[in-house]
Amino acid sequence: MYPQSLQTLIEQFRRLPGVGEKTAERYALVMADLPEEEVRQFADALIGVKTQLHRCPVCGNLTDHEECAVCRDKERDRRTIFVVQSPRDVTAMERAGEYQGVYHVLNGLISSSRGVLPEDLNIDSLVARAKDAKEVIIATSATMDGETTAMYLDRLLKKECPDVLVTRIAHGLPAGGMLDYADEITLSHALADRRAM
Amino acid sequence: MYPQSLQTLIEQFRRLPGVGEKTAERYALVMADLPEEEVRQFADALIGVKTQLHRCPVCGNLTDHEECAVCRDKERDRRTIFVVQSPRDVTAMERAGEYQGVYHVLNGLISSSRGVLPEDLNIDSLVARAKDAKEVIIATSATMDGETTAMYLDRLLKKECPDVLVTRIAHGLPAGGMLDYADEITLSHALADRRAM
Repeated sequence: MYPQSLQTLIEQFRRLPGVGEKTAERYALVMADLPEEEVRQFADALIGVKTQLHRCPVCGNLTDHEECAVCRDKERDRRTIFVVQSPRDVTAMERAGEYQGVYHVLNGLISSSRGVLPEDLNIDSLVARAKDAKEVIIATSATMDGETTAMYLDRLLKKECPDVLVTRIAHGLPAGGMLDYADEITLSHALADRRAM
Repeated sequence: MYPQSLQTLIEQFRRLPGVGEKTAERYALVMADLPEEEVRQFADALIGVKTQLHRCPVCGNLTDHEECAVCRDKERDRRTIFVVQSPRDVTAMERAGEYQGVYHVLNGLISSSRGVLPEDLNIDSLVARAKDAKEVIIATSATMDGETTAMYLDRLLKKECPDVLVTRIAHGLPAGGMLDYADEITLSHALADRRAM
């Protein structure tokens, strides 16, 4: 239907998560209308992430440098490790600005439905790092796969590094969350994890 | 927060319509995880639309060839011109597979709110083509700007090409549309444009 060059770009945009035919068409047509210089900047940015970006050898986060910004920061407490699924979680946590320790990015979650096994994740280097740590905070999401991964890591760390404290981030009512809108699992967690005021 | 190369790509994705910070992050991280070869194909596709794609000199639609596929097709009835806002409308209409005439793509709509004037659109060549036509079907959308453009074109064509029949596509209840879910304007149109059965 569309000219070949446009159709090719539409198919490329369809690779993006949640992008269907109509949205991909809209994106491709916006690109077709931009000045050539700006489209070249977009293309260069795409190439840039493949040529410059790589995993931090320490924590598995993405970086343009030898090590990531957190691992390079001498002020961070290397004995507290916050374990997350993806680089986005690191950014979310850094935005909150509360956490002073370091991170460990698993780059996925154990998932029976998607066939992701522990050996597919960045777990070996976590065990090695945990041996020198005081606390490992498991902050995988509160989903089925997140809980499975948390339980797996808890068992593994308790076996391999018996001296380290393994904790899980709190689950409960989010800020601004109203009790009558919360789902049953959130409410069960909020009740079970209640604390003295 | 993110490494520079990733942040640059996130900003590029934010240029796309309806893409906010979170979505742009998600898109950029997907790209970071793809093999380099596939990301290069995406970048090449972007460059491709700027180097190969251009406006058909006859109708204003996008094409990789000298003229667009419809204008090149000798079977199409050149005396009936279907006037639309964008190349997407041509594709939508071609998918319906009913229409045998040719198109004219305005590449926009007259809009007082966005400051788009008639001279910003592909209108001059429409008037020139309409002089040899039997019918001009105005198929701009049923929105404020679409109606303004339709009225402007109707007046212009009646003045410049008094012999041509100027029509407007029907407005009414869409296929599968239920009366009790339709808005007032759609219902007013459906009533006003009723026809004998």
